[in-house]
Amino acid sequence: MKPKFRILKKDKKTKARAGVIKTPHGDIETPAFIPVGTQGSVKAISPRELMEAGAQIVLANTYHLHLRPGEDLIKKLGGLSKWMSWNGPTMTDSGGFQVFSLGVGKEGGGVKFLRDESKYEIEQEAKPRLNKITEEGVTFQSHIDGSTHKLSPEVSIEIQEKLGADLIVCFDDLESPKYNFEKTKESLELTNRWEIRSKKAHKNKNQLLFGVTHGGKFRELRIESAKFVDKNFDAIALGGAHLNKENLYEVIDWTVANVSEDKSRHQLGIGEIDDIFEIIERGIDTFDCVIPTRIGRTGFFFISPPLGNIKNRFRTDIDKPQYRQDSKPLDSNCKCYACQNFSRAYIHHLFRSRELLSYNLLSLHNVHFLLNLTKKIRESILDNSFSTLKKSWL
Amino acid sequence: MKPKFRILKKDKKTKARAGVIKTPHGDIETPAFIPVGTQGSVKAISPRELMEAGAQIVLANTYHLHLRPGEDLIKKLGGLSKWMSWNGPTMTDSGGFQVFSLGVGKEGGGVKFLRDESKYEIEQEAKPRLNKITEEGVTFQSHIDGSTHKLSPEVSIEIQEKLGADLIVCFDDLESPKYNFEKTKESLELTNRWEIRSKKAHKNKNQLLFGVTHGGKFRELRIESAKFVDKNFDAIALGGAHLNKENLYEVIDWTVANVSEDKSRHQLGIGEIDDIFEIIERGIDTFDCVIPTRIGRTGFFFISPPLGNIKNRFRTDIDKPQYRQDSKPLDSNCKCYACQNFSRAYIHHLFRSRELLSYNLLSLHNVHFLLNLTKKIRESILDNSFSTLKKSWL
Repeated sequence: MKPKFRILKKDKKTKARAGVIKTPHGDIETPAFIPVGTQGSVKAISPRELMEAGAQIVLANTYHLHLRPGEDLIKKLGGLSKWMSWNGPTMTDSGGFQVFSLGVGKEGGGVKFLRDESKYEIEQEAKPRLNKITEEGVTFQSHIDGSTHKLSPEVSIEIQEKLGADLIVCFDDLESPKYNFEKTKESLELTNRWEIRSKKAHKNKNQLLFGVTHGGKFRELRIESAKFVDKNFDAIALGGAHLNKENLYEVIDWTVANVSEDKSRHQLGIGEIDDIFEIIERGIDTFDCVIPTRIGRTGFFFISPPLGNIKNRFRTDIDKPQYRQDSKPLDSNCKCYACQNFSRAYIHHLFRSRELLSYNLLSLHNVHFLLNLTKKIRESILDNSFSTLKKSWL
Repeated sequence: MKPKFRILKKDKKTKARAGVIKTPHGDIETPAFIPVGTQGSVKAISPRELMEAGAQIVLANTYHLHLRPGEDLIKKLGGLSKWMSWNGPTMTDSGGFQVFSLGVGKEGGGVKFLRDESKYEIEQEAKPRLNKITEEGVTFQSHIDGSTHKLSPEVSIEIQEKLGADLIVCFDDLESPKYNFEKTKESLELTNRWEIRSKKAHKNKNQLLFGVTHGGKFRELRIESAKFVDKNFDAIALGGAHLNKENLYEVIDWTVANVSEDKSRHQLGIGEIDDIFEIIERGIDTFDCVIPTRIGRTGFFFISPPLGNIKNRFRTDIDKPQYRQDSKPLDSNCKCYACQNFSRAYIHHLFRSRELLSYNLLSLHNVHFLLNLTKKIRESILDNSFSTLKKSWL
């Protein structure tokens, strides 16, 4: 059975919609936040904790699983969902983003994030790229052992078919945010050729293949890309790297205006609280992000209004001295296992003592927080209160 | 209510017995394995996972909690059991062992363990001790920031009263395994004076105070110590550091023969599979050990017979290449969460990828393994099959 998307309700004032994606591994109620399990594990969280937190689907990375342990072994052990004992719907990306990180991402000067991931800056120093792109595909060095590997549309799809996720993504070439119009156009044209090859290579009828839109921050290219993907694919993923917020929202507007309404739309790699409201308002159905687990491991946790706000990006740092004696939970409005059972003071102690349980509790809280927020947003769309909910947060 | 021990059944052929310790935080069915949560967390395991694994009581370390976050804060937040959201019975040690590690443990040449903790060796190179022992107590340097602290019988008991565990231990001086008879006797006499001071300092009637026996490997001293502790205390803890197996078993025999039968007996710091059978057979009721979590974090996991045996110490290493494609659980006879849901192949992948979930699953399995083994031993004592069970394992 091929995964199928259905819209249940549209918001009256915005482009937000509530729907459902039916997959062979179960239903995904949208809008949905998709936690990322890069190497087949959402970092520091067990599958049952993830399910309890309200996750409906997990995204894993094709690049990482291809290098270790390899798609053949995962297929032999029952496929991605069974192998990681998630037993629910899964999604894989194409490997394109990791290839970008090894290539133009380095050449243009790598990206450096602050500890709380609230800001990044492009490192000025360019580094030698670790990949080589041709019409055929990409040759790159493994980050694990330096061995040489190839990815192409056909190889990416073959890997993703063996992994067996319900939602999969076409192999794409990522443009550098520093590219001018001409270079971005060249990259988009290569992506388009690769997407057609991805589509031809794809045989597994139980998987929904997302075409990916590109075109950097250029309106003309983004519209061309949206129309191209809409013409050729049943589901739309919005790609690109390191757009600023203004560009991101514009890009979604341009894209959504140029694709069929009945196709599901996935925003790759976004997960800030304000972004979640803004992208759903603009018509995004699903989105994935590593932020909640990554900032959890460095001590940051999400907080809801009035403590949390745009200015503090709805997060604070458990390492702060003010939490040493704080008997309150991480977030007073949260119903996750961490907030129901532990004080900030205890988790502050665990974090300072480098106890592994601290990474588990902070990550679990953060993932639950985004899942729960997205669930509330869905409910608000269903009962016509989306704008009110958004106002109460932003 | 003061914790109270009651014997329910005695084995006919050995000194093994099944009983129960009633505490203000709940009952402990004995024999019982007590997992160790050094800094207020059994490493890499959440309290609810621990409870599900069958833990009845957790031991935390006075030395560590005194230095961070401090007993006053823990008391303010409801005491050890509530603070760590364990909400069941707890035990604290006296701090004596950590003081030993900083002192004679270093002076005599530190102890170095193999990665799987199956063997240790005394490092030949002596290091400067980080503590100073006088009649009054011990002055030592914190392992966290080098600051100077004092422990004495009165201070140790005051800390333990504030932490509020159900079972607590007298402050003791640990003898070096290299000491001769005279030096061991001197150390024991200091311990005895400190134990009497500990008893005098102890006011909290909801706590059961264990006297600690010492005397190294010397029969005469061990008997003297057993009689001394039995005369002065309602519960007996067997102390000492780095005895070999033969000495350990002898020491228990000498001690048990010289203490009242109706007092509960705790063996400090023991948890190898064969030791568990041997010490319970000799009359031990409770024992604590960091082995299951410590070896779990380095990749080792317990296996039951016939795969597990004395020769491999009932353990193997998930990092071995043979587990790369192994679809079986860690241990086929185990009912823990890890064994019910994940393959060795998946956990091997997680461990090689340094995913935090691997430390959780391996630690959880190992703790469950010892808890379940001890539970089976208890059942065998109750239905007169202890010797048969022991034979099937050793």
